Amino acid sequence: MLSTVQDVPLLISRILAHGSTIHGTSQVTTWTGEAEPHRRSFAEVGDRSAQLAHALREDLGVVGDERVATLMWNNAEHVEAYFAIPSMGAILHTLNLRLPAEQLAWIVNHAADRVVIANGSLLPLLAPLLPHLKPVEHVVVAGPGDRSLLAGASVQVHEYEDLIAGKPTTYDWPELDERQAAAMCYTSGTTGDPKGVVYSHRSIYLHSMQVNMTQSMGLTDQDTSLVVVPQFHVNAWGLPHATFMTGVNMLMPDRFLQPAPLAEMIEREKPTHAAAVPTIWQGLLAELNANPRDVSTLGQVTIGGSACPPSLMKAFDDLGMRVCHAWGMTETSPLGTVARPPAHAVGTEEEFGYRLTQGRFPASVEARLTGPGGERIPWDGESAGELEVRGPWIAGAYYNGPDAEPLRPDDKFSEDGWLKTGDVGVISPDGFLTLTDRAKDVIKSGGEWISSVDLENALMSHPDVAEAAVVAVPDEKWGERPLATVVLKEGASTDFEALRSFLADEGKIAKWQLPERWTVIEAVPKTSVGKFDKKVLRRQYAEGGLDVTKL
Amino acid sequence: MLSTVQDVPLLISRILAHGSTIHGTSQVTTWTGEAEPHRRSFAEVGDRSAQLAHALREDLGVVGDERVATLMWNNAEHVEAYFAIPSMGAILHTLNLRLPAEQLAWIVNHAADRVVIANGSLLPLLAPLLPHLKPVEHVVVAGPGDRSLLAGASVQVHEYEDLIAGKPTTYDWPELDERQAAAMCYTSGTTGDPKGVVYSHRSIYLHSMQVNMTQSMGLTDQDTSLVVVPQFHVNAWGLPHATFMTGVNMLMPDRFLQPAPLAEMIEREKPTHAAAVPTIWQGLLAELNANPRDVSTLGQVTIGGSACPPSLMKAFDDLGMRVCHAWGMTETSPLGTVARPPAHAVGTEEEFGYRLTQGRFPASVEARLTGPGGERIPWDGESAGELEVRGPWIAGAYYNGPDAEPLRPDDKFSEDGWLKTGDVGVISPDGFLTLTDRAKDVIKSGGEWISSVDLENALMSHPDVAEAAVVAVPDEKWGERPLATVVLKEGASTDFEALRSFLADEGKIAKWQLPERWTVIEAVPKTSVGKFDKKVLRRQYAEGGLDVTKL
Repeated sequence: MLSTVQDVPLLISRILAHGSTIHGTSQVTTWTGEAEPHRRSFAEVGDRSAQLAHALREDLGVVGDERVATLMWNNAEHVEAYFAIPSMGAILHTLNLRLPAEQLAWIVNHAADRVVIANGSLLPLLAPLLPHLKPVEHVVVAGPGDRSLLAGASVQVHEYEDLIAGKPTTYDWPELDERQAAAMCYTSGTTGDPKGVVYSHRSIYLHSMQVNMTQSMGLTDQDTSLVVVPQFHVNAWGLPHATFMTGVNMLMPDRFLQPAPLAEMIEREKPTHAAAVPTIWQGLLAELNANPRDVSTLGQVTIGGSACPPSLMKAFDDLGMRVCHAWGMTETSPLGTVARPPAHAVGTEEEFGYRLTQGRFPASVEARLTGPGGERIPWDGESAGELEVRGPWIAGAYYNGPDAEPLRPDDKFSEDGWLKTGDVGVISPDGFLTLTDRAKDVIKSGGEWISSVDLENALMSHPDVAEAAVVAVPDEKWGERPLATVVLKEGASTDFEALRSFLADEGKIAKWQLPERWTVIEAVPKTSVGKFDKKVLRRQYAEGGLDVTKL
Repeated sequence: MLSTVQDVPLLISRILAHGSTIHGTSQVTTWTGEAEPHRRSFAEVGDRSAQLAHALREDLGVVGDERVATLMWNNAEHVEAYFAIPSMGAILHTLNLRLPAEQLAWIVNHAADRVVIANGSLLPLLAPLLPHLKPVEHVVVAGPGDRSLLAGASVQVHEYEDLIAGKPTTYDWPELDERQAAAMCYTSGTTGDPKGVVYSHRSIYLHSMQVNMTQSMGLTDQDTSLVVVPQFHVNAWGLPHATFMTGVNMLMPDRFLQPAPLAEMIEREKPTHAAAVPTIWQGLLAELNANPRDVSTLGQVTIGGSACPPSLMKAFDDLGMRVCHAWGMTETSPLGTVARPPAHAVGTEEEFGYRLTQGRFPASVEARLTGPGGERIPWDGESAGELEVRGPWIAGAYYNGPDAEPLRPDDKFSEDGWLKTGDVGVISPDGFLTLTDRAKDVIKSGGEWISSVDLENALMSHPDVAEAAVVAVPDEKWGERPLATVVLKEGASTDFEALRSFLADEGKIAKWQLPERWTVIEAVPKTSVGKFDKKVLRRQYAEGGLDVTKL
């Protein structure tokens, strides 16, 4: 029997209509590097989103579910693209400007982007790429930057402001199927071609509701969120959509992602929330230590993308900025877990331990752990397995062209449709996830798993260690053993024996897990999104490029 | 183009599975009137819900989308029924025990309830009704009460605890269509037959997410919610579902709804949130004034069902209990608006005014105002119209039997499918709704509308007035004019002239809106859910049963 409830689809156009009317006075503030940032109300963003949709349809001929790409920083125009493109029925395709040029070209060709909206400041990146972007016919340029870089390009070039000027400020948004594609994002896979995840109106809408639940980020129109996590990275963790749903003000850094301007925008604009990966916060911390500022408004700092070192969390606590750990990935929209301590731990010594976990799953994310042999691993807080998840905003496949069957590689999706995250961890009986490794980074030593992340965290808690990465290397006796690669702080002179003793002290690390192989490196190689790039280290080791000491 | 996101339905069984595992230690505490209340963990509720589903299927033969009725107070067993019945695919039908017997019988027959789960304490109500409940074959009795009242009834009688004892504590919940019926609730319409609203798994799931958003109630597992609003009244405003979604503890008053036990349970169990209609809070306030208690934990009090008088809101503020106004109805699941002041008003003199409105619509509830001629009324904060709403948890029809087309009466639903709420009000440019009247209670005087609610609130702010209701009565010259019916406080001797001057003072009420007709009554008649029953007053006036003074 069907219910008598109205059959109303969950659409991004509804989030836009709501945010730009009921929360019309909320603001998107974009950093300009000049005396004053640029401020635009949600009402204006609403008007301009309608204008942009008219321009895309009427001037550039965007129809149906065409992909429209953005190559942009976090700013008000990018927010307009976020709402205009899906609301009109097209698909927002955010391009990760940190990717190598050949990957970017591959992605644009794969998605068949005919229109690219780009920030002027990114033309030095786009211009040399253009000859390789076969489907691109139109480039729309927004914001400052040298347009002459596009001289001679075989595409039509448009000024964003000219294009939308004079267009109607309302648009008759179509009533779409909520399962229709709304946005897509390619993962920067470390092996093979990039893989596209296609979000639906429904998945983005539900995800936005979850972000706004008190147990997740729980922001309201009394908040301002400093959105450092890029809009080209999993929809900036869903913040532009979630903020329009509840009127949260957005503070957008544009291209000013260096520690000094970030510290300045926090002091001047007084955000109450911020979201970014740990490396950004590491840099900010160093800046604040060197040049103290009043950052006391920033009560909630969401850290995700990779694990937050305990030392960093403590340092932020001391500054009055409360770090909240979260875990997710491109394939999970990305909200997977949020580390809000359970009621019984709040205010106790246990609390910090809970905050260091990846967090707890919301009702809409089902989780299970699978062992190396495919067996189900219990939620006992001790037994590790690969995390698999299921839910209405979790990917069940990858994009394979508009008319092709989606890709469902066996190593990414279970037979019953769950996403294999590639993350290894444990889950406590009360549902807190602690990730210990990427499945591919786990060190398989004599039939047991050694967590590279545990070793790294322990190493990084040593006062002389700036960074440390641990990778598996082949070992005749044990199959694999850990190699510790260490970045020492300036002037530090600790030796490997001392570091090894430090790890063994107080039972931090079990004796059989202690690395024998050690090396000092200048910096840990990073991926385009700032994560440790361990495949580079493994390759350097295999090629004999590291000066390894065996204890 | 479809997205690559998993197609996972939004089901009540998921809320149950989540709440009973990740929040397994959260508790449902049921007041017993004895030294200790009864405590049951969410994990136990999960086990027992599975047991109840087994019993219903295997022992009572409940199959498909059969309706299973409950005639119960707010307690742990009722929560079990809330989860077991829809999760197994059947439909939870909550019976409003305050309805007149003949309406209850009509409803049970209309819904074709074959099984009724009833509290033992309600057998005095159920037993005499049973001969009129044709479809009922099984009565399952839970909790204390005199079973002998059912002796001789031509139904099978079961003990709840005996029925579920020994059954498996897990159940293979089916993967249903999220649009399938999950629960139903009949409105106690003041005219015509009661009308059934059938909620879906989807509508309840989405509504639960909204309730948990910070801008709505926003509770977490650090909270305990005192659920005074009955579970037979619009799913207790969605609280049992919402609490299982985030682990909020529930404090259930069972049949102890009198001011003294409510005050005692607040002091002893320290809830942080409570939800009830204004009349309950009026009674509690009087009790607390007579017998002061420590109620300081109760930081958030959700008031809905009818408007909260400003004096009551102030009195609760003074006790440290922050009232949050909300508006909704059976047809809206019920969350329609919540009165959280906008950021710019927080901490200013404007704030209290915003809190007195019905509140702001969330993104999922679209609203519009329609004038008497069907014209669209602007959101200018001044022009009144009938409120119409649309959204994924708003009714689009009424139940008309399992195989019949749903009912869509013209006075309840617009041609384009919006719900006509029957409420008249204004909406401010920033989306705050202020209801001034029920459409049928508006006084149409000389082509203008007079709000009966404005008059009532103004009257009730007079120190000698306990309650006041204003109704339209026929007038030769103006069409209709207001009749003021006043309940005076004990010992008060104010006369009508003084009250009329009080209304005119300080521009409270425009001169042309001041009532000429006045009467003193002993109490305002109330409906079964505690609202003013104005049709009784209109009838008494028409029949000459009121002693009216004309000034």
